[in-house]
Amino acid sequence: MKKSIHIGIIGAGWMGKIHSEAYRRIPITFDLGGAEVRLRYAADVEPALVKDLVKRYGYEQWTTDWRQVIEDKKVDLVDICVPNFLHKEIVIEAARAGKHVLCEKPLSNSPSDSREMINEVRRAGVKHRIDFNYRKVPAISYVKSLVESGDLGRPSFYRAFIGQDWGFKAGAANTWRFEASQSGGGSLVTMGSHVIDIGRYLLGDITEVMATSWTEPQRAKGPQFVDDAMILSLKFESGAIGTVISNWLAHGRKHHFEFEVNSEKASVLFNTERLNELEAAFGSDEEAKQGFRTVYIGQPHPYGDSFELKTGMGIGIKESFLIQFYEFVRCILEDSPSSPDFYDGWFVDEVIEKAYRSVRSGQWEKIGKWNEP
Amino acid sequence: MKKSIHIGIIGAGWMGKIHSEAYRRIPITFDLGGAEVRLRYAADVEPALVKDLVKRYGYEQWTTDWRQVIEDKKVDLVDICVPNFLHKEIVIEAARAGKHVLCEKPLSNSPSDSREMINEVRRAGVKHRIDFNYRKVPAISYVKSLVESGDLGRPSFYRAFIGQDWGFKAGAANTWRFEASQSGGGSLVTMGSHVIDIGRYLLGDITEVMATSWTEPQRAKGPQFVDDAMILSLKFESGAIGTVISNWLAHGRKHHFEFEVNSEKASVLFNTERLNELEAAFGSDEEAKQGFRTVYIGQPHPYGDSFELKTGMGIGIKESFLIQFYEFVRCILEDSPSSPDFYDGWFVDEVIEKAYRSVRSGQWEKIGKWNEP
Amino acid sequence: MKKSIHIGIIGAGWMGKIHSEAYRRIPITFDLGGAEVRLRYAADVEPALVKDLVKRYGYEQWTTDWRQVIEDKKVDLVDICVPNFLHKEIVIEAARAGKHVLCEKPLSNSPSDSREMINEVRRAGVKHRIDFNYRKVPAISYVKSLVESGDLGRPSFYRAFIGQDWGFKAGAANTWRFEASQSGGGSLVTMGSHVIDIGRYLLGDITEVMATSWTEPQRAKGPQFVDDAMILSLKFESGAIGTVISNWLAHGRKHHFEFEVNSEKASVLFNTERLNELEAAFGSDEEAKQGFRTVYIGQPHPYGDSFELKTGMGIGIKESFLIQFYEFVRCILEDSPSSPDFYDGWFVDEVIEKAYRSVRSGQWEKIGKWNEP
Amino acid sequence: MKKSIHIGIIGAGWMGKIHSEAYRRIPITFDLGGAEVRLRYAADVEPALVKDLVKRYGYEQWTTDWRQVIEDKKVDLVDICVPNFLHKEIVIEAARAGKHVLCEKPLSNSPSDSREMINEVRRAGVKHRIDFNYRKVPAISYVKSLVESGDLGRPSFYRAFIGQDWGFKAGAANTWRFEASQSGGGSLVTMGSHVIDIGRYLLGDITEVMATSWTEPQRAKGPQFVDDAMILSLKFESGAIGTVISNWLAHGRKHHFEFEVNSEKASVLFNTERLNELEAAFGSDEEAKQGFRTVYIGQPHPYGDSFELKTGMGIGIKESFLIQFYEFVRCILEDSPSSPDFYDGWFVDEVIEKAYRSVRSGQWEKIGKWNEP
Repeated sequence: MKKSIHIGIIGAGWMGKIHSEAYRRIPITFDLGGAEVRLRYAADVEPALVKDLVKRYGYEQWTTDWRQVIEDKKVDLVDICVPNFLHKEIVIEAARAGKHVLCEKPLSNSPSDSREMINEVRRAGVKHRIDFNYRKVPAISYVKSLVESGDLGRPSFYRAFIGQDWGFKAGAANTWRFEASQSGGGSLVTMGSHVIDIGRYLLGDITEVMATSWTEPQRAKGPQFVDDAMILSLKFESGAIGTVISNWLAHGRKHHFEFEVNSEKASVLFNTERLNELEAAFGSDEEAKQGFRTVYIGQPHPYGDSFELKTGMGIGIKESFLIQFYEFVRCILEDSPSSPDFYDGWFVDEVIEKAYRSVRSGQWEKIGKWNEP
Repeated sequence: MKKSIHIGIIGAGWMGKIHSEAYRRIPITFDLGGAEVRLRYAADVEPALVKDLVKRYGYEQWTTDWRQVIEDKKVDLVDICVPNFLHKEIVIEAARAGKHVLCEKPLSNSPSDSREMINEVRRAGVKHRIDFNYRKVPAISYVKSLVESGDLGRPSFYRAFIGQDWGFKAGAANTWRFEASQSGGGSLVTMGSHVIDIGRYLLGDITEVMATSWTEPQRAKGPQFVDDAMILSLKFESGAIGTVISNWLAHGRKHHFEFEVNSEKASVLFNTERLNELEAAFGSDEEAKQGFRTVYIGQPHPYGDSFELKTGMGIGIKESFLIQFYEFVRCILEDSPSSPDFYDGWFVDEVIEKAYRSVRSGQWEKIGKWNEP
Repeated sequence: MKKSIHIGIIGAGWMGKIHSEAYRRIPITFDLGGAEVRLRYAADVEPALVKDLVKRYGYEQWTTDWRQVIEDKKVDLVDICVPNFLHKEIVIEAARAGKHVLCEKPLSNSPSDSREMINEVRRAGVKHRIDFNYRKVPAISYVKSLVESGDLGRPSFYRAFIGQDWGFKAGAANTWRFEASQSGGGSLVTMGSHVIDIGRYLLGDITEVMATSWTEPQRAKGPQFVDDAMILSLKFESGAIGTVISNWLAHGRKHHFEFEVNSEKASVLFNTERLNELEAAFGSDEEAKQGFRTVYIGQPHPYGDSFELKTGMGIGIKESFLIQFYEFVRCILEDSPSSPDFYDGWFVDEVIEKAYRSVRSGQWEKIGKWNEP
Repeated sequence: MKKSIHIGIIGAGWMGKIHSEAYRRIPITFDLGGAEVRLRYAADVEPALVKDLVKRYGYEQWTTDWRQVIEDKKVDLVDICVPNFLHKEIVIEAARAGKHVLCEKPLSNSPSDSREMINEVRRAGVKHRIDFNYRKVPAISYVKSLVESGDLGRPSFYRAFIGQDWGFKAGAANTWRFEASQSGGGSLVTMGSHVIDIGRYLLGDITEVMATSWTEPQRAKGPQFVDDAMILSLKFESGAIGTVISNWLAHGRKHHFEFEVNSEKASVLFNTERLNELEAAFGSDEEAKQGFRTVYIGQPHPYGDSFELKTGMGIGIKESFLIQFYEFVRCILEDSPSSPDFYDGWFVDEVIEKAYRSVRSGQWEKIGKWNEP
């Protein structure tokens, strides 16, 4: 096993900070068997931002030129936290330089770009990780374990809604997220990609998508406007169906991602705003005592031992990044498989592209097939 | 003003009982200015059922031949509580006999049938009412008033889900509701029609629908199987969009109909299982104090005076029928307009038919235009 | 079995209306085996009030002199809906006239008065009922059945809170409820008596009480001020303990009566504002799946057949009166035992008196012993 | 300003780990102006435990003799995480050695011990901190700010309940927490001390207490049994009243600490299991729109900037320790006042002692007066 992992980060904005903190916390929370995680290099085009990142999290070096991070001999893992449209070039360069790569979601703004990126990381033989951090929320990991153990029986329906109110905020519409050429899309790209991934994580591959889009009339005047809300209908390979709604013009919704899975034996219901709770209803309960149970996620659940907490004492959303990055570092150290990887990222990009195509065609669009290696 | 209304009811099953009780309660709860509501005649093909109805609610006469109810001179209002596929013939006969008609939802199994029915009631000049009882739930009436007052601003999104677990019950699949030829469809017809109507009630006319259907594989083997779950995407004339989900294979859902309306100034959230509550979030609240408010519906809200209850003391679902029938009786007595009427019933039938057509076509289907008189 | 029950009601205010409606609804909802419930006589000192009651609910006669109701030969059941301090005299006169008596809670303003009343009704051999209507809420009846079946195991703790905000309302302080000489006390008498009764209903007799009182300083200036809030600690004969809080100066609380019972095998939690729900947590559930279940009360629960409703469709608070009065009428018709009766009323009066005594003494006060017949 | 703080920790159990992690995270989350926090020395009587702590969190040295920590020249801050009955001796020795002291709650097992401890730390002029970490939960800090700003008006009632189910766990009764001589008491000491402190934090000093205790009969047989549940009634100097319930035999309660404050203008409701939410109801809202708002605590609230999170993305309970220790380190570095300090710890010990005395006396007990310096 390797004895250290040197991190090079590209992008010193909000996500850059969240990621840096998580790397710093890995050795505090997890046992790496003596291996070290070193914050080696940080890059951002804004000198003030990157200098602040270095000062706060202790990177050894900084630059405004991301290529220097990739060229650095010591850097083992390149972490990409820049806007979506910049992911592709950096990933390809990093892979060619033999670096393992972690990329913020979505993987890119188009599935064909994502495919190129995957071809490169596979060719280079580097580890790759897409940061779908919700998979690492213990409540969601627990749902996954209930699917695998058969406790839920065959899932039949996925109902998901992600809502926020930040589209109402003054100035929101002036960020890059509202420029289609940079973000690749609106509420669906920014918020909905998590939701699609969790649906696939729990119910399996998606085969078709049908989508509807809505943009607030006054924003819609610009040439590059993005969707404020989207409705997706999904068909899964298993025969299940589902729906995904994203809406960032929803008053009262702060960071609301709720989903329900209806299965043969049970239903489960989760909401990120109540990160440490799972609602679960079992068909096998005596009829007079049936109902959704509010299960506080803790010691008997996934990662229950990692946080030294009694059930009912919650963790925060940042711990999902911490788990994600710990697991990725560990799979680099041990040369073990990485999940979720870029293929998972591509899948979501493919669903998103086909969703936007469906908005234009008014028809169901098939999700492309692509063999996993 | 007339001094009495004689009720003739056709169908003595579950709905027949709910309706009969409501008629009996009208004079106890509401002031009819001295007019009487008399339970005149009851019909059902099953003698045991109709005799029980008569005994319990005090109808003056009974029969197993519904035509006798219609031919009865005294009957003013014919109330139709039989399976969907029988509505048309009875409505037409009743109208031709000059009777006012109240019909359980859905109006019929096809919008063309519904149109014929409307032509007949209009030609006859009788009052007509479709029993979309949720419109009369005070919480929903209150939402309507908030739309009309401008408190919500322009609605942009309607998100609705109706879920039940009764599809899992032993024997459920053997009822007429699971025979498409009799019911006209599955979860969407039985449960979803309310949900479509409330969407239209609050956001206005629907112009297009796109739908996905799912049937549990083992049920799907029969030739007449119906949908166990449906997903509808909706476009409204106002530019808003929406989604309706119906699913009667959802463990933990007993009689769950939740909807959310996101609007320019606020969001509201309602669930029939918590009939006396409305969740409302206002964008104008100070940011640090924003959040959904749990508003108990009572004295300051619609019908608040009718039930002699303090806020926080709830009413039941039956009171929505009571309000509905009181208002219909009153509009007969006063010769005033009836709402919701058969046109509202037709609209929902049209959306449902186009939804099933969309399942087959895989495309958006336009909602037919039909001028209101 | 008798063939009819003639009701005489005294008091035509809010409770008079609620009661009258319930009597009218008995034959609609329940099967009395052919017996009739007739609204015979209504009395109130205010002619306008009583005339309105007669008009609305159909009493055969009215008077402003309650003695006429009692003297009426036909009246079988005298129902008392007047302010607390008037209960005693009427009950005694009614009993002496051989009438069965139903009395709104609390039974009287002092346990010694209540004892006299009980002596009279027992001497007269008439049926007596105290209107603790919450005992007849199906969710609470279901909890009682879980206690009796042993599903909960031995109860150890009763935690109850009744909160309202109406003390803040303009003019509230000017009603008779705020005059100790007429009401017998404040929030504890008006709201807390239900809560004490439910505690005893579920956990058994109370042996000692300790109490704390609070009055908003500006109200406290008058000589007859009553408590705005009270805290009671209770000891039960079974060894369990409990607490009761009443507070009518609680913003956001409309008609909030929540209680929790912790038992050997489970905990249950109920709130009147969500009348059709019970939260129940079972210690026998697998640890990873433990949590409070939201059980919608319906068909599999007490009175599930009476209301022709599917589970998840709720009833209202008025149905608890309907059940109460139906059961009392039935026990008169069949000459069967009545429960809750005046002894149950006395018990609560005794706890309340001792609670106020404890406020003055600063000590635990013993609940008097009195043999049930 | 000092340039570094060296931590010496005594006690390597659960709390030792939680504290150590928090110290490690301070420089990652907060800006200490260049100053360092160094984990210098760890002690525990169990060599395996302390070695594990050192390995995991990186202390420079370890020992099984806590005096060595105190004697170490470099140690600035002694953090005490040992069982309650050992706090006193260590605090006194540490103070005499001129070390700043942080002590887990409760400060000691008796207020007279606590007073001695305070006298020593004051005499030595060292900083002292009691780890009432709930004060640092942002939702609770926000409530405090609403009290101070006058948004709530005068608080009148404090209703608190802390419930857990761990008393049911096999083996629970064999830990030191169930030995009165070591723990100082049962559910009230272990769980209730937080709850008393938060009551005082928000409503001010407590002047009298009345208490009831309950122990499960089978445990009660031992000579040193402790309370499984307690009920406290409280009188505040302000005239407000309150109640505190602790119960560790409550099925379904995992780590449930809920409290409600009713005030002149509003009510607030909080539950630790939903750490990032505050329920708040304002009397000034339009009557038809009144209700508890679910406010997700985030950017507009205390510490909103510290965690780089959008509102609706929650933090965990550990962040309350992180804030607490950061603030204490900062007040050492800057020689600024520490809060909560040992006086706050003494106050809670005094209330607890008087509560247990009240259980024996059956009377109200006065909280001793002691001038703050």
